[in-house]
Amino acid sequence: MKRGMCIRASRFSARRLHLRPVTTHHHLSDLHAALRPGVFDLGLGHPDPALLPLDAIQRASAQAIARYGAHALGYGYATGPGPLADWLRHRIAQREGRLPDADEIAITGGISHALDQLVTLCTQPGDVALVESPTYHLAVRILRDRPLKLIAIPGGPDGLDVDALSELIGALKRQGERPSLLYCVPTFNNPTGLCWRDEVRRAVVALAERERILIVEDDAYRELAYDGDAPPSLWRIAPMGVVARLGSFSKSLAPGMRVGWITAGRDLIARVRTCGVMDSGGGPNQFATMTVAAYCEDGAFEPQVARFVETYRARRDALMRALATHLPAGWQAPTPAGGFFVWVRLPAGLSSEALLPVAEAEGVSFVPGRRFFCDGRGGNEALRLAFTLYPPAQLEEAAVRLAQAMRRCC
Amino acid sequence: MKRGMCIRASRFSARRLHLRPVTTHHHLSDLHAALRPGVFDLGLGHPDPALLPLDAIQRASAQAIARYGAHALGYGYATGPGPLADWLRHRIAQREGRLPDADEIAITGGISHALDQLVTLCTQPGDVALVESPTYHLAVRILRDRPLKLIAIPGGPDGLDVDALSELIGALKRQGERPSLLYCVPTFNNPTGLCWRDEVRRAVVALAERERILIVEDDAYRELAYDGDAPPSLWRIAPMGVVARLGSFSKSLAPGMRVGWITAGRDLIARVRTCGVMDSGGGPNQFATMTVAAYCEDGAFEPQVARFVETYRARRDALMRALATHLPAGWQAPTPAGGFFVWVRLPAGLSSEALLPVAEAEGVSFVPGRRFFCDGRGGNEALRLAFTLYPPAQLEEAAVRLAQAMRRCC
Repeated sequence: MKRGMCIRASRFSARRLHLRPVTTHHHLSDLHAALRPGVFDLGLGHPDPALLPLDAIQRASAQAIARYGAHALGYGYATGPGPLADWLRHRIAQREGRLPDADEIAITGGISHALDQLVTLCTQPGDVALVESPTYHLAVRILRDRPLKLIAIPGGPDGLDVDALSELIGALKRQGERPSLLYCVPTFNNPTGLCWRDEVRRAVVALAERERILIVEDDAYRELAYDGDAPPSLWRIAPMGVVARLGSFSKSLAPGMRVGWITAGRDLIARVRTCGVMDSGGGPNQFATMTVAAYCEDGAFEPQVARFVETYRARRDALMRALATHLPAGWQAPTPAGGFFVWVRLPAGLSSEALLPVAEAEGVSFVPGRRFFCDGRGGNEALRLAFTLYPPAQLEEAAVRLAQAMRRCC
Repeated sequence: MKRGMCIRASRFSARRLHLRPVTTHHHLSDLHAALRPGVFDLGLGHPDPALLPLDAIQRASAQAIARYGAHALGYGYATGPGPLADWLRHRIAQREGRLPDADEIAITGGISHALDQLVTLCTQPGDVALVESPTYHLAVRILRDRPLKLIAIPGGPDGLDVDALSELIGALKRQGERPSLLYCVPTFNNPTGLCWRDEVRRAVVALAERERILIVEDDAYRELAYDGDAPPSLWRIAPMGVVARLGSFSKSLAPGMRVGWITAGRDLIARVRTCGVMDSGGGPNQFATMTVAAYCEDGAFEPQVARFVETYRARRDALMRALATHLPAGWQAPTPAGGFFVWVRLPAGLSSEALLPVAEAEGVSFVPGRRFFCDGRGGNEALRLAFTLYPPAQLEEAAVRLAQAMRRCC
């Protein structure tokens, strides 16, 4: 269960939505944190519900049925709804300078579903999957639902450690193993908020091409760029077939639409489109995808993204200011140029897992850094804060509470 | 790609929806059949687009946003949208006489997605999966996307062959193997349209319980009962945990909603709710599920099902009459009491695969029986006709053309 579910439950009637406690440790801790009144939960990595374009989506869904009729309610097409694929292809061309051919893009049920599908289609039991560390912890859960060996590749402020990646691949080859994929979030990373530098992007792409490793690029945050354009995607700079780039409307429109896309090589796109689930169930949710198509065709996408960017930029700035003003000395947090998150390194000797209960007692919560390391090694000196959910005044109060908790732990 | 996609493409502008030819043999043949003007494609197993409740769904989607606000556009809950789960639980109790507890039901993205998820969660690479034969051919494709050994279990007019099932399980045990699941469509079967007899249902449930094999019951057609109530589901008569029953709104509302449900044991439901995809992506498409919730809460479900039933019953009757009137002697086709399909056994010596091109030349298409046998053994003397897509007059003309093709092949 997503952390995000918890606070929504506390705010919008858990009883009505039958939110039930779930059993894994971090879920329970989430639930307690979220259901405790007066806790600012900066662990929640999701959009502010107050910013979701309810009216525009209501209009778009009516438009979808008026415009596409029974198409909008049918099985959908393996090629995905043409109007949405078209709009996406031309937007990608305009924003990224590379036009995916019609057979280089597939509409998906969001990044999580696309990742799940890629793992089914592109890995064999026992395969090695490489995972950037730190990385999006819930993507790791999707990988763990399969019999794969996960190996963490360290990342730094400039991006993935290319030398470590190269050495590891060499060591695996000497053992007769070849990783089948590399999962990473190179742009406005979750949890660090940082972007890989250009040389790192090019080096990782070159290495993956040479070693025939599929790069699965989670590009969920591209639209949320607060200080100029996002860097080019790995897909943009890679030769055909090296990268499967996963895009989504969850951050740029609304998570509940569960609509995303993949840009990748023709062969992989063909496999995604013709796999059993697509063959039987049709495309991903046709009603939702045609609603998103109508929304985008009618020009609603850009202004809504601009609203998100403007609001989240102000919240990011407010949180960074508040941290600088209130936290005790010794912490570090690079300012993210986009996305949802700030990655805070604590003063020496302070553990984020030890800090969490103290912080929650003070009325603020976060995700301890260790959760973003698929091998559990590292991250205990860091924590992830999301700045998207609360307005500036509440973010400042959250920082005051975090500072108080840190003082109590020192 | 679904057969259904093809004819929609031909009718509703293939170009606009970017329908592309796909590469596997039967898809190409589908495409040719469907794109050839004047062919009645009784191979297409999907609802008549003209019967889909466009206005009611348009109202429901507006209602969903008005009623649930940001809930309808959020990540959703691992428990699924409470209003829809509640409505389903009480409808199931009312119709089937067994009330699933709140933790015995999960909302899914339709049966295909649910099956895909169950296979991921409930099988290990190399496991044996038992498949009723004949059975829904596209479900088999979902199973084939995994490294499983599929074994066909013969079915007859009364349902699955329990003795054959029992002997096979014994033989597998002697080889040290235990099947992990049994996939079947016991009610208004696809492709035969028939229902398992009550003794068969009870015997298969008892055997599966004794041998600890999960029965995956595809219950897609339950609502479409034309001659009295559908027989009890295997889930209804089984002890907790033996059966995972997959339900769907694709046939009773619209395929494009991609909303379904699972009723199963608590442990399995908990695993479905907390697996990686659900944890990361949230519930299945929240916007679509909340739209279906509003649609059902507002009383639109029953009258629409009644419209489908009334229309499809008349079409079934018209097709059966037309077959009896026009087909040359020697064929057999039991009248289905529900669902979408009639299973026609051809006169001795006539092969459905040999008949197909001749029939398509005459302007009628169908699915050859062999496609519904996961081991490719059997079915060549039979074919599947869907009676849902065309009005009675066109069904009669289709039967006339089929009869002409049969005469040309004899």
